[in-house]
Amino acid sequence: MQSMDELFHALLQDVYFAEKQLLKTLPKLAKKSSNEKLQEAFTNHRDETEEHVERLEKVFEAIGKKPRGKTCDAILGIIAEGQEVIDEVDDAALRDAGILAAAQAAEHYEIARYGTLRAWAELLGHEEAVKLLSKTLAEEKHADELLTSIADGGVNESATERPLAAE
Amino acid sequence: MQSMDELFHALLQDVYFAEKQLLKTLPKLAKKSSNEKLQEAFTNHRDETEEHVERLEKVFEAIGKKPRGKTCDAILGIIAEGQEVIDEVDDAALRDAGILAAAQAAEHYEIARYGTLRAWAELLGHEEAVKLLSKTLAEEKHADELLTSIADGGVNESATERPLAAE
Repeated sequence: MQSMDELFHALLQDVYFAEKQLLKTLPKLAKKSSNEKLQEAFTNHRDETEEHVERLEKVFEAIGKKPRGKTCDAILGIIAEGQEVIDEVDDAALRDAGILAAAQAAEHYEIARYGTLRAWAELLGHEEAVKLLSKTLAEEKHADELLTSIADGGVNESATERPLAAE
Repeated sequence: MQSMDELFHALLQDVYFAEKQLLKTLPKLAKKSSNEKLQEAFTNHRDETEEHVERLEKVFEAIGKKPRGKTCDAILGIIAEGQEVIDEVDDAALRDAGILAAAQAAEHYEIARYGTLRAWAELLGHEEAVKLLSKTLAEEKHADELLTSIADGGVNESATERPLAAE
């Protein structure tokens, strides 16, 4: 890579891949969750993620490139950790806490990457891209905060009560 | 996994592995950086990371477990992305911007995980662990903010100027 344009393009491809992976993963997380608010959060965030993918496609267009993903090892690792929780935790309340935590790791990956993409887009003078990336960044931060409030609002407490004495 | 204690222990092992990987990686990042402030940030954060490892060992002790890591695919993926920048970007100013961005992805992974560990430690009543994890969480957030200020303070701008017309 020889220029900031190329660096920006490479990171865009990384995040595009990541969002597409999450688009496939979020319905699974919703299905494997038992807490209603958590299910709803994953389902809504799946729809937001669809918009994030579309916004990234507009950013590709703005820089004259075709939308194409590039394997993002980080998101694959984060998703693998979420899958491990699904595979290894049988109790529903406990699994909720673990899935929620894995989803927050994914949110934070995106917060870091969209923050960088926006900063680079600004310096490169891609005004439309800055607007699109800012919108998504705000939604990722909001999704993370919502997950924290769902964790604090009962998911973590229910998990801590397992196994129930009565069981 | 059958209980929150086991979930907490598993995530502790994940983060312990991650910190130990970063302990090995940060000196490489310092060596591959050209911006002095960035070099200094990586060198200082390497020393902080050593303390983070020691604090995690105290948390293991507090829950009566031996400190042991468990492969963390997420951090391996993030580190692989940083290595890709080092391998693929020859220009020093451009490489600085890419390395800095990868380091922020690592910081965000840790912010997510320490946030979860602290919340779980609170519910489990591990008071000493809550104190230790809070300290590290604050340092990870500070490290991320410092990297943002270094990015905005010249690293991203220098990268955008590449390739220089004179070269």
